Amino acid sequence: MASANHRLAAFFLAVIVSSLASSPGAAWDVKLEIDDGMPLIHMLRPLLSSAAGNLARRRNSNYGVPCDSWRFAVETNTIRDWATIPASCEEYVGNYMLGGHYRRDSRAVVDEAIAYAEGLELAGEGKEVWVFDVDETTLSNLPYYAKHGFGVEPYNWSTFGAYVEESSAPALPETMRLYERLKELGIKPVILTGRREDKREATAKNLASVGYTGYHMLLLKPQDVKLHSVEFKSGERKKLEDAGYVIVGNIGDQWTDLLGEPEGARTFKLPDPMYYVA
Amino acid sequence: MASANHRLAAFFLAVIVSSLASSPGAAWDVKLEIDDGMPLIHMLRPLLSSAAGNLARRRNSNYGVPCDSWRFAVETNTIRDWATIPASCEEYVGNYMLGGHYRRDSRAVVDEAIAYAEGLELAGEGKEVWVFDVDETTLSNLPYYAKHGFGVEPYNWSTFGAYVEESSAPALPETMRLYERLKELGIKPVILTGRREDKREATAKNLASVGYTGYHMLLLKPQDVKLHSVEFKSGERKKLEDAGYVIVGNIGDQWTDLLGEPEGARTFKLPDPMYYVA
Repeated sequence: MASANHRLAAFFLAVIVSSLASSPGAAWDVKLEIDDGMPLIHMLRPLLSSAAGNLARRRNSNYGVPCDSWRFAVETNTIRDWATIPASCEEYVGNYMLGGHYRRDSRAVVDEAIAYAEGLELAGEGKEVWVFDVDETTLSNLPYYAKHGFGVEPYNWSTFGAYVEESSAPALPETMRLYERLKELGIKPVILTGRREDKREATAKNLASVGYTGYHMLLLKPQDVKLHSVEFKSGERKKLEDAGYVIVGNIGDQWTDLLGEPEGARTFKLPDPMYYVA
Repeated sequence: MASANHRLAAFFLAVIVSSLASSPGAAWDVKLEIDDGMPLIHMLRPLLSSAAGNLARRRNSNYGVPCDSWRFAVETNTIRDWATIPASCEEYVGNYMLGGHYRRDSRAVVDEAIAYAEGLELAGEGKEVWVFDVDETTLSNLPYYAKHGFGVEPYNWSTFGAYVEESSAPALPETMRLYERLKELGIKPVILTGRREDKREATAKNLASVGYTGYHMLLLKPQDVKLHSVEFKSGERKKLEDAGYVIVGNIGDQWTDLLGEPEGARTFKLPDPMYYVA
């Protein structure tokens, strides 16, 4: 009976967790454990279990687009030009970002990128480069977005700009693993970001402080020019090719990092359900 | 106590379902209910509950890439040129395709496409067209793939060709909804498929039998020419534009339906974790 009572207690606990999932807004707790041996990006963890996340997801499916299908359409570049995540998806996106799911998805992308890079035959002249985006690619802004509703608040130039000036963003560990492997293989990292030139020092300092050393170039957007991301980034990639470089890979969290000729021989799309860059 | 016993029974049922999820291979049962009011494509349903699907997913995460992260990387065009789904993901993909998830994801895509189309201002000269792929877009081959492991078996020209000749594929209901709405709006559907010319009659017959009537063109691949999908389809889109048509939208389940200039003003990526077309 001790065993049956134990199970009964577990069941009631599940009911309590389920009822928590019905409370409005999301709740977060300090994370104590590491998922699947992956280093943490951020100390917050979802307060609710993934089972509760599933309940929330199912609840969301009763009105509008369910959050996991919204994420599918966002990640495949079908839903574009959105300013904020759906308010009903804050809890879902928070669970996704802070739970293991975001990290597992990132790992699948980087595993594929490394397998691809290891299979390349380099010409031996040091002309092969790999283009990396910064935000949500080399660096993770989870410490910022965890305080700002995971994309439920409209983008705020002022507060995000102040955060960038702190140079405090952690690395996305999966991207760091790719970066190190590419350097070992002799493929030169080129950092290409939509951050403006006035953030060059803060960005370089941040990259160095988390271990991104030895990159070939750090390319930022000119200060006062209006340019959409695709125009700017494809233009810079064109300049690289015109200068004799071969872009063997291109990794970013936004489709606007990846689209626009020349795209690079292969593109690698990291997850980002928090914001859209036009 | 009756209530507590009831809960105890529910808990044991959950344990039994969990243990079922540990049995090797996938199991499917005839579907009796309709999910979320969506018409069925296929009468099979996952034998295991979605809770069991989650358990299976978690189990898969212990070795290799977990199936949901594999699907993320496939759907975002990061993992390419794959011949079959991972053997360990047959159950996951089967659950995804036959449960509500595939249909919810398709609905999110079509809802976005319809909202976009309704916001267009047409020139009034009848030159606006929308490009539709066939397999896993206008038509669903789930009846075939449910018998062939949901992509775990290598593609078989002979058996799939025989299936196409039956002209028996159901419509993907979400795509049909988009198709009908576009016709109401005055946007002309153009069907563009990688199926070869020898399948024209069977394809036209199948499309008509499930209700795709009144399309502007049905374009198939020439019989004996070696052409990758991107070359063929972007070439056909170029011809459409050269003939004065405006491609306002382009929908397909493969990235090779959508990439390659001219892509169309907007692309809409339907889910397909079962196969890859180069």
